[in-house]
Amino acid sequence: MNGAETPLRTLLNIGVDVCFANPGTSEMQFVAALDRHPAMRGVLCLFEGVATGAADGYARMAGRPAATLLHLGPGLANGLANLHNARRAHTPVVNVVGDHARSHKELDSPLESDIDAAAATVSHWVRRPQTAAHIGRDTAAAVAAAMSAGVPGAPDRSHTGTSGAISTLIVAADLSWEESAPPVPHLSAPPRRCVTRADVETTAALVAGAEHVALLIDGAGLGERGLQAADRIRKATGTAAFCPTWPARLRRGVGVPAIQSLGYRAETVNQQLAGIKHLVLVGAREPVASFAYPGRPGLLTPPGTRVHRFVPDEGFDVIDALSELADTVAPDTLAVLPAQDTHPPVADEPLRTGNWAKVIGALLPPEAIVVDESITEGMNTLFSATANAAPHDVLGLTGLAIGQGIPVAAGAAIACPERPVVCLQADGSALYTISGLWTQAREKLDVTTVILNNRSYAILRAELDRVGAGQAGPAANALFDLGRPDIDFTAVATGMGVPATRAASTAELAEQFSTALATPGPHLIEAILQPA
Amino acid sequence: MNGAETPLRTLLNIGVDVCFANPGTSEMQFVAALDRHPAMRGVLCLFEGVATGAADGYARMAGRPAATLLHLGPGLANGLANLHNARRAHTPVVNVVGDHARSHKELDSPLESDIDAAAATVSHWVRRPQTAAHIGRDTAAAVAAAMSAGVPGAPDRSHTGTSGAISTLIVAADLSWEESAPPVPHLSAPPRRCVTRADVETTAALVAGAEHVALLIDGAGLGERGLQAADRIRKATGTAAFCPTWPARLRRGVGVPAIQSLGYRAETVNQQLAGIKHLVLVGAREPVASFAYPGRPGLLTPPGTRVHRFVPDEGFDVIDALSELADTVAPDTLAVLPAQDTHPPVADEPLRTGNWAKVIGALLPPEAIVVDESITEGMNTLFSATANAAPHDVLGLTGLAIGQGIPVAAGAAIACPERPVVCLQADGSALYTISGLWTQAREKLDVTTVILNNRSYAILRAELDRVGAGQAGPAANALFDLGRPDIDFTAVATGMGVPATRAASTAELAEQFSTALATPGPHLIEAILQPA
Repeated sequence: MNGAETPLRTLLNIGVDVCFANPGTSEMQFVAALDRHPAMRGVLCLFEGVATGAADGYARMAGRPAATLLHLGPGLANGLANLHNARRAHTPVVNVVGDHARSHKELDSPLESDIDAAAATVSHWVRRPQTAAHIGRDTAAAVAAAMSAGVPGAPDRSHTGTSGAISTLIVAADLSWEESAPPVPHLSAPPRRCVTRADVETTAALVAGAEHVALLIDGAGLGERGLQAADRIRKATGTAAFCPTWPARLRRGVGVPAIQSLGYRAETVNQQLAGIKHLVLVGAREPVASFAYPGRPGLLTPPGTRVHRFVPDEGFDVIDALSELADTVAPDTLAVLPAQDTHPPVADEPLRTGNWAKVIGALLPPEAIVVDESITEGMNTLFSATANAAPHDVLGLTGLAIGQGIPVAAGAAIACPERPVVCLQADGSALYTISGLWTQAREKLDVTTVILNNRSYAILRAELDRVGAGQAGPAANALFDLGRPDIDFTAVATGMGVPATRAASTAELAEQFSTALATPGPHLIEAILQPA
Repeated sequence: MNGAETPLRTLLNIGVDVCFANPGTSEMQFVAALDRHPAMRGVLCLFEGVATGAADGYARMAGRPAATLLHLGPGLANGLANLHNARRAHTPVVNVVGDHARSHKELDSPLESDIDAAAATVSHWVRRPQTAAHIGRDTAAAVAAAMSAGVPGAPDRSHTGTSGAISTLIVAADLSWEESAPPVPHLSAPPRRCVTRADVETTAALVAGAEHVALLIDGAGLGERGLQAADRIRKATGTAAFCPTWPARLRRGVGVPAIQSLGYRAETVNQQLAGIKHLVLVGAREPVASFAYPGRPGLLTPPGTRVHRFVPDEGFDVIDALSELADTVAPDTLAVLPAQDTHPPVADEPLRTGNWAKVIGALLPPEAIVVDESITEGMNTLFSATANAAPHDVLGLTGLAIGQGIPVAAGAAIACPERPVVCLQADGSALYTISGLWTQAREKLDVTTVILNNRSYAILRAELDRVGAGQAGPAANALFDLGRPDIDFTAVATGMGVPATRAASTAELAEQFSTALATPGPHLIEAILQPA
């Protein structure tokens, strides 16, 4: 068995059986080993940012990591932005990055670069096997680290039983030529820790007390069990519950207790948290603004609010903590489960900010996976429009590195082939990883992408004003405007092998969305939005 | 003047007047400052790899750096692969990367990452201005470092008078809000150094001696003056002259003495250098294989060949050294200038490896800039087919990080609006930075892109065998094959605003290529290549 076969077999032994790949010469032995192990599903991505984003989407839904196969430093570099998002989502990802043969490193050949330094910017765990005999052990360690709640920075993220971190295994090409040791069994990750009974009692006293309390929940707490516990607490004590603006994964819709997401803007959060005396963090971090603005605080907690860390955001069992808290303060209370999906009819009118979301909310199929990179267009409209849609999971833009949507949708569809995936995708962001559409076509994935085409980086217009730089003149506008020429996403998608249509009205969107959902394979709908 | 205006005015004072930009919130003050300084041309790129590749292409042709404007760590990360290529091309680039306000850093907000570490993987010079008062000085230092032959790793690259390195200036958002100092005048770069008379005499004795000698020339030596000197030396002494496989910039065609480029494969280089007793490096580095292969050496110099470093590849004046050597050994010899462009007629037949290049060679217009990312398709055919084409410059894939062609073509066209740009682009590589086509359309650039569509990562099939992994089975083939579905580049290009046609025969390619060159603005021709 050579040094490429050992990691492959080790991954398969542990249950990692999908590899999002964009290989090169230094990874050819891995590619050859795939032919001998068809249990590993190799998924070709035509850009490394697609591979890493797909691995993120896959693991958010599958509850276990996928591998990526990346070519040297530049290949890893192309995947960094979506690994940043995965890191912020606490998604487990195992990167296998090929490197030059060890004898070749000192020659400083054209593709030589500092892979270790690039990997360290996004990885919790980076290792180079020192000999072919170490590859199996190091591969198992990479998976354990990716799944480990014990790794610094790797919190519990166990809707589906995982907690996640980014592992990067850098394998010199010559190790994969050499004879290696047999695959290694799973190294188990340390178990998640539980909060103490004393912590539960203290928090119970707080939420049952007279002062206004809110929970801020993240991670595994945003699955059905966590949300039910939070809702019991709310019903019994009046304690509000919030989640981050764009969580990694959030359960929503009919049958799922509702939770309010914090707004993107500080002003919105200030209103949401007004009057709250105690903010209790449950697997969440203290809320901060995405950016600093002149004269505004970066911490979003109002000055008079005390922050309590009930469940740390790393390595603790959020669901158990929330359930124990609910059992303590609301032993006989049941959660309120929103009733059956009813939506007012959506008037037929030109598409614009707001009304497209109502169409999606009305037509969302049960158990959809909604990948949300709608950014400006969805910011104040999507969650309300889908609040009592059919039950679904939403996967958010955790790290704010745009270009996540199309790849995450591909990965989620591979993880859950029986579920429809709906990707709500801002136009500007779509272009970063547009070739992910081809992977959706190659793999025949049931993804319906709705491009929200407002022909601009809309968020930047608002940001220019917020940083105190005033209104955009011609030069600034040229950097926000995605027109001149307008991008025709139907043509681009068709060119990538994804059937595409264009919708200009709510009726057209509704008809095209229903048709796309009813037809197997990927589809793209370009929703042309009129200025608000 | 605020801290965004100072660097802008400093750049303009120094003559840096093009900025390839993909900004975000942390760069909004720079964007606003563009409105007050229309002399700075802001060019919107829809992905950061397009911005950095365009900056590379611009500087290779303009002889002075462009700036890039990138958003935080993930924005820089997306630009790293083409900065790697620029670094390997010794191109001067000045990156301006916005960062969060200093007060915001400790909050670890969603986009926070280690920008400095990512920047260091590709940059010769990285600095963060510590106060707004330092921004002007640090901006001038960034440009001086980018242009400096004195920076470690920054060799002379002065076809057009520049030598190049990558500078990255990381500017905290709050510095750009604050009051700053006036712009700073140019800090001059240290002059290039000259080889000694003794070095010239030693080398002259070698090339005039009885043993076979070859020059390996790179950098500024590959412009017209350097090639003429090399040809005089050849004519007088029989000394062969070679250049790297894919140099950053090489002058070729009618009126320009020919030089042989080293092959990509070690076997080819072994044949080329067979019998050479002395290899003299002239602004070049010792040739190495791009990858290691089992049982093959990484150094390409044959065992019996002695290597002499006549002109170091960093900081020395290559043109002067070559000219002085020519004046010593060939004082009365004139270079051989290839005669007028004559091409045998190309038979009308289906396009395949080899014949497309003959069409390009026959129809290449005078003073074309040829951006060569043809990889497998051009490897053994392009240079012979264009050897006596009209005079032109070729820009090569220096760092082997694919996805350079379309952006470099955009940058070169902005640097040289009066010259036609021809981008010979492999299909797989094109998809990495495909949105660069939109920038070509937005800026109305005279770029003719020929997609060499062989529907595969053709180079990888060969590499699988070369690393000893044998023939590809179904799983490996799935990772090399760009079909299922076929990508329709005419649709993709049209969607990006670039008119596109498809050619299946040499006659169709010839007709479409001529039409594209005769029509202003960008065009794309998808050349469908039959298997050889």
